[in-house]
Amino acid sequence: MSSTSRVDQSIYEDGDVLCHWDLPKKVKNKLKFPHEPERPNKQYIVRGECPFNAEPPLRQLVEEYITSKDVFFKRNHGPIPLIDENTHKVSVCGLVPKPFDLSMDAIKNNYSKLRILAALQCAGNRRNGLDKVKTVKGVIWGPGTIANSYWAGAPLREILIEAGLSPNGDGWMGKDFHIWMESYGPCEEDKVYGSSIPLETAMDPCKDVILAYEMNDEIMSRDHGFPVRMICPGIIGARSVKYLAKIEVREKESPAFYQQRDYKILPPEANDQNLEEYWDRCESIQEMNVQSVICTPSEQNPLTDSNIVKGYAISGGGRKIIRVEVSLDMGETWLIAKLHQEKTGHGYWSWCLWQVEVKSLKNVSKIICRAWDSSSNTQPCEPIWNYRGVMNNSWDIVQLMQNPKI
Amino acid sequence: MSSTSRVDQSIYEDGDVLCHWDLPKKVKNKLKFPHEPERPNKQYIVRGECPFNAEPPLRQLVEEYITSKDVFFKRNHGPIPLIDENTHKVSVCGLVPKPFDLSMDAIKNNYSKLRILAALQCAGNRRNGLDKVKTVKGVIWGPGTIANSYWAGAPLREILIEAGLSPNGDGWMGKDFHIWMESYGPCEEDKVYGSSIPLETAMDPCKDVILAYEMNDEIMSRDHGFPVRMICPGIIGARSVKYLAKIEVREKESPAFYQQRDYKILPPEANDQNLEEYWDRCESIQEMNVQSVICTPSEQNPLTDSNIVKGYAISGGGRKIIRVEVSLDMGETWLIAKLHQEKTGHGYWSWCLWQVEVKSLKNVSKIICRAWDSSSNTQPCEPIWNYRGVMNNSWDIVQLMQNPKI
Repeated sequence: MSSTSRVDQSIYEDGDVLCHWDLPKKVKNKLKFPHEPERPNKQYIVRGECPFNAEPPLRQLVEEYITSKDVFFKRNHGPIPLIDENTHKVSVCGLVPKPFDLSMDAIKNNYSKLRILAALQCAGNRRNGLDKVKTVKGVIWGPGTIANSYWAGAPLREILIEAGLSPNGDGWMGKDFHIWMESYGPCEEDKVYGSSIPLETAMDPCKDVILAYEMNDEIMSRDHGFPVRMICPGIIGARSVKYLAKIEVREKESPAFYQQRDYKILPPEANDQNLEEYWDRCESIQEMNVQSVICTPSEQNPLTDSNIVKGYAISGGGRKIIRVEVSLDMGETWLIAKLHQEKTGHGYWSWCLWQVEVKSLKNVSKIICRAWDSSSNTQPCEPIWNYRGVMNNSWDIVQLMQNPKI
Repeated sequence: MSSTSRVDQSIYEDGDVLCHWDLPKKVKNKLKFPHEPERPNKQYIVRGECPFNAEPPLRQLVEEYITSKDVFFKRNHGPIPLIDENTHKVSVCGLVPKPFDLSMDAIKNNYSKLRILAALQCAGNRRNGLDKVKTVKGVIWGPGTIANSYWAGAPLREILIEAGLSPNGDGWMGKDFHIWMESYGPCEEDKVYGSSIPLETAMDPCKDVILAYEMNDEIMSRDHGFPVRMICPGIIGARSVKYLAKIEVREKESPAFYQQRDYKILPPEANDQNLEEYWDRCESIQEMNVQSVICTPSEQNPLTDSNIVKGYAISGGGRKIIRVEVSLDMGETWLIAKLHQEKTGHGYWSWCLWQVEVKSLKNVSKIICRAWDSSSNTQPCEPIWNYRGVMNNSWDIVQLMQNPKI
């Protein structure tokens, strides 16, 4: 069974599309963007128009604990597809005893509806910090490609059990199987967007992986995956595949471009010349690392008479943020922030918003923050460069230009 | 049901023992040590005789991937109890529908036998690195309180299911319940050694928590928990309670001293004077953070004509070590080490031994290593001090004194 029949070939400019399993050959499709939705938020910092990639200003990002769709970052690898919900199908196939196609009606009515609060973060969040060290390959994001919303949908576990997988692990537990996911295409570097997560993650009732069709209790917006997307909590956003068209159980990771040739931390030695040596030797990123960012004041809004420092923090795998510390003296002493993090489902999938009251920001030239998660991991003090500029979680440092009037 | 009847009161010097729930009052028992086993390894670096606390030299530690009982570190909070396997019982009680007592015969014969390779690491491993920053409270361990052995025993999950907990989570999934564990006492700061882990961890078949009675395919040695101990893979050693006498389901964490007044990372501001303010505001440590150590050459054995640098690395929660890097130039450039890490059960519970061939160690004054785990977490470059000196995972730095003859 293949998803190719569902890819709208007409929106390619030419028909000469390589099979998306033909890796490592990179396919740069000439894409058309005829169906882009309206984006009313004029404050977005636009990093690319086609595909549309944009992040909100930090101040706007942390105004609310729940991020609305118009503040949520937009991360696309292709045009926003126009999908008819009434005819859309998700194939469930591969190494399952009973493969079948799922209509949207079945996804909505035949399974439990699980509603969880989960932060999605792009693996390229804060890529600009690594690009300052040395040029990196990727969209140069600031720290705004993270957002925290409610998602509701059908547990992937239930769907896989219907396809014949044993709920208690007989036949698959302990095996290194994976769930390949494919979007309704097309996209930039590949025929369709493909990615994978371990089968054990998908089947673990504590991991809360869902096929989501609602975001913040509304129909999923087109920019965020209408009519259905994966939500893989605690894992980088790249695995929460939008416009989901296929889920397939296989005995190895997805060979898709976005699993094999993107979203990996290559060692500092990897560069344009020797790149190919490293890809297959490096692991695909799954869970997020521990992260924190100062959102106000910011370098863009440094002139403040406020004495509140605010930001966000998050970790992967459902790990709770147990402490955020802020330093006004280059790491000599640290203030402990007040935290707010909610738990829905089985892990701390949502972000932590934090704030700390300081005596004064007068004469402070730099504000630093760092977070700790429930595995006692903390952030490295300096950025550690990698070719794709992913997973930058070094201490966040905001340089304040002092307003002489304060 | 209480375990007090099974505590051998006769080995207290006085009968005036406070209830071990009387926290935060610290009980310094006057203990006798009449039943200590033989410890044939004369190379141990002994950190305390009563209780016996000792770690092996690093060179000995990484000679084998599987650590034998005579190289395994010894971490005790009290005398080694003399327990009759034929009469020993483990109570299964608390919020379970069908409480019962388990004999050793039942533990060995009524459940599956799960055999896993798992590294245990004391949360105080490398405490000496933090003590150099500022005095810390605890046994001043070097980097040798880690070891990697086979453990075999009965899955805690199966025992809890027999006690009436639903295998699929009905009634407990998503609730913040905990498993309280108690040892056959006594110990230093409390009546018995008590600790806890989340119930979700205990019930998750992917977490491989067992009541172990074999170590490296032999009867558990007395120093390591005979006749039965918990093995909680991926979690600090302090939760793998030895001489297990009771497991109890409760709606909150164990109130025992070792859960509430030890094994927490207090913020740097906490000191002898203001300590009590911080204990209840800080989380108990569960999963280990990402860690790596250089074992040879060492500061104790710096004069080497070898050009191989070797060490260990580990992370918590079953997360794999995906890279170890070694620098000979103070972090300017990094060499990538060859890794060996085995997976048994459902996670990377065992340690990673690594080595890297360098051109020469001549004129090298410092060797540095750092590891990365499968959540993209890495180690902080400098030690971050905390009062109890726990969870030190800063970059390991070995200072070489050059042999002029090399």
